[in-house]
Amino acid sequence: MASKILLIVLDGASDRPVNGTTPLAHAVTPNLDALAFGGINGLMDTIAPGIRPGSDTSHLAILGYDPYKYYTGRGPFEAAGVGIEVKGGDIAFRCNFATLEGGIVTDRRAGRIEDTDELAKAINEKVKVPGVEVIFKRSTGHRAALVLRGKGLSAAITDTDPKKEGLPIKECHPTDDSPEAKRTAEIVNSVSKQVLEAIDQSPVNVERRKMGLPAGNVILIRGAGEVPHIPPFPERHGLKAAVVANAGLIIGIGKMCGLEHLTVSGMESMEPVERISVKVNKALEALQTHDFVLLNIKGADEAGHDGGFERKVQFLEAVDAAFAPLKNLKDTLVIITVDHSTPVTLKDHSADPVPILMNGPGVRVDEVTRYTELTAHKGGLCRIRGMDVMNIAMDLINNTKKFGA
Amino acid sequence: MASKILLIVLDGASDRPVNGTTPLAHAVTPNLDALAFGGINGLMDTIAPGIRPGSDTSHLAILGYDPYKYYTGRGPFEAAGVGIEVKGGDIAFRCNFATLEGGIVTDRRAGRIEDTDELAKAINEKVKVPGVEVIFKRSTGHRAALVLRGKGLSAAITDTDPKKEGLPIKECHPTDDSPEAKRTAEIVNSVSKQVLEAIDQSPVNVERRKMGLPAGNVILIRGAGEVPHIPPFPERHGLKAAVVANAGLIIGIGKMCGLEHLTVSGMESMEPVERISVKVNKALEALQTHDFVLLNIKGADEAGHDGGFERKVQFLEAVDAAFAPLKNLKDTLVIITVDHSTPVTLKDHSADPVPILMNGPGVRVDEVTRYTELTAHKGGLCRIRGMDVMNIAMDLINNTKKFGA
Repeated sequence: MASKILLIVLDGASDRPVNGTTPLAHAVTPNLDALAFGGINGLMDTIAPGIRPGSDTSHLAILGYDPYKYYTGRGPFEAAGVGIEVKGGDIAFRCNFATLEGGIVTDRRAGRIEDTDELAKAINEKVKVPGVEVIFKRSTGHRAALVLRGKGLSAAITDTDPKKEGLPIKECHPTDDSPEAKRTAEIVNSVSKQVLEAIDQSPVNVERRKMGLPAGNVILIRGAGEVPHIPPFPERHGLKAAVVANAGLIIGIGKMCGLEHLTVSGMESMEPVERISVKVNKALEALQTHDFVLLNIKGADEAGHDGGFERKVQFLEAVDAAFAPLKNLKDTLVIITVDHSTPVTLKDHSADPVPILMNGPGVRVDEVTRYTELTAHKGGLCRIRGMDVMNIAMDLINNTKKFGA
Repeated sequence: MASKILLIVLDGASDRPVNGTTPLAHAVTPNLDALAFGGINGLMDTIAPGIRPGSDTSHLAILGYDPYKYYTGRGPFEAAGVGIEVKGGDIAFRCNFATLEGGIVTDRRAGRIEDTDELAKAINEKVKVPGVEVIFKRSTGHRAALVLRGKGLSAAITDTDPKKEGLPIKECHPTDDSPEAKRTAEIVNSVSKQVLEAIDQSPVNVERRKMGLPAGNVILIRGAGEVPHIPPFPERHGLKAAVVANAGLIIGIGKMCGLEHLTVSGMESMEPVERISVKVNKALEALQTHDFVLLNIKGADEAGHDGGFERKVQFLEAVDAAFAPLKNLKDTLVIITVDHSTPVTLKDHSADPVPILMNGPGVRVDEVTRYTELTAHKGGLCRIRGMDVMNIAMDLINNTKKFGA
């Protein structure tokens, strides 16, 4: 019987057929196919049939957390994704740096400003709210996240983002009658004003104005959400657990669920294909010290969003090559699945169910010989849901309790 | 169209593969296979995927009762299992006979005492609680069950079992603030003391002390549960219903659901294999007078718990031989399934889904040719749940109402 679990998510790898085939079916994937051949296969609706998942909601579900209960909006997950160590009860927001001139938002993205380190630093240093911790972190480009931490706060408030240019920044208003919402709206309005004071004359902005570029002198605040209290995965299952991923959103979700994020250094300078092997090896190494490792591999999703059938095929073949060492794993239940389909014909996520395979001691090996979304339904798992994965896995490693006698 | 239902549960028959095969797949089972060949097949999660079922929770689910609603702990089901005619609202407990010396529990099983008839009789005669009926019944060995029946009782109380030897019997305490819990805790403490008075000097105990054996002079009380109000199966479905089973737990569940228990006399002196035929014949006979018969056949579960692959094969082949008369059934929907897997490699229940077949007039016969957990997923039922069985069965015998117009 296996005692460890390696859960690999091929982000967006699943597809709809083009001329009768899909990137997964068209790709030459001997290692994936060997794992399918020696394992049990099926289709999975990560949320439910026909429900189009995000990567955040689907990863929550696959980790065993009902997204309808634990997904409280994008703010908290974005904040975790950009590296803020969010805590249950925090109020988190997505932000844009924007340009305010004469009281009017003239550019909602501040000319797609890139260099926001200094601005973020100034915001963290200068913006103060009595009794509330204000945490601000920049993300890529003009994007950023904001967290308010303290007692007596609420996410029942409106955005300050006017949504289009030529309008003033909106006042933040409470959306219910609670004193918490009233107070939080006041805090957001105060933060909004303090940010302008903190960064309007910042050297970066002085320089940008000189060059005729829009200043990033305000932030637009939206998507308020209360960070959910997520029961930590390691305590819930009694497993020492880690996540290997590059995408901020997946790292953030992993951390929010209590998974240790294992960083792989020097990835930036690597080719995408080289990254896959490095991450697979990192995950295999992690299994020496952890009971559960979540490995997210992102590239197929990007190919899907770009509509690149051939690019998706090539990426999946590279993934397959990097999976050669998986066949030497012992004592481990290997689960390979996908968080959502990203059809190249759609260039977006779809709800088409995704293939899932489980390979390891004790599984009921079926007659499926390839890992594709067109053959998986013939396998012994039939059609399961994301929320079933951890329950099934914990049963297969004999680490679960009986319900009844 | 059939008008009757024979539901056969092969307790624990399902398994995980050993060298690529399972006891069910390895066994020669021409009768089961003929029923699969002529019927519709599928996999079933008795509770839900990955949820490891007990025999009690799984039988409840298969009979159409949500175990998350109706399973109120082991006490009520153990009490029903040892033959107490429990009623909805009763507070039921599991008990041990134990040895108390100088106020200290010196043996939690009273030297694994066997002869407890006289002790149980004394308890039932002498222990009195005003306004409350106290029902005590011995089970096998040192085990017993206790039921308190009356108004104003609660199961929100602690155990008296100190869990290890060398400690006094614990006081029973309420676990909520209700007057019912306070009163019930007082009653349990009173019963605990009265039992000592009732049986400490009982002839059995005097004799045991003479022989240097630990006396069974107290009972340890645990697992309080309120007997659920289960809507009677016959009224719910309009079916005259019976259960044929040997295991106390299954008989108890059958009775709690309002099924008539049909006893088969003289089973004790029979070989296990002989018992199967007698029980199958009893079930077939019962179909003359009843609309629904639940037949539970226990042996495969025991072989699984003992880890005996070959023993499980032999038992299943004996079961199959006893099923020869099933092919002559007319007017009956035959359902053959399993309550949970008991893999010989695990020696305990697992959550691996179990095979289910339905054979009778009107079913959509599929291409499955054998009754095994490795082939069932190819059938027309795909993967269903225990709670679906009665709904599907009632529809197939055309004894159900339309939802809508």
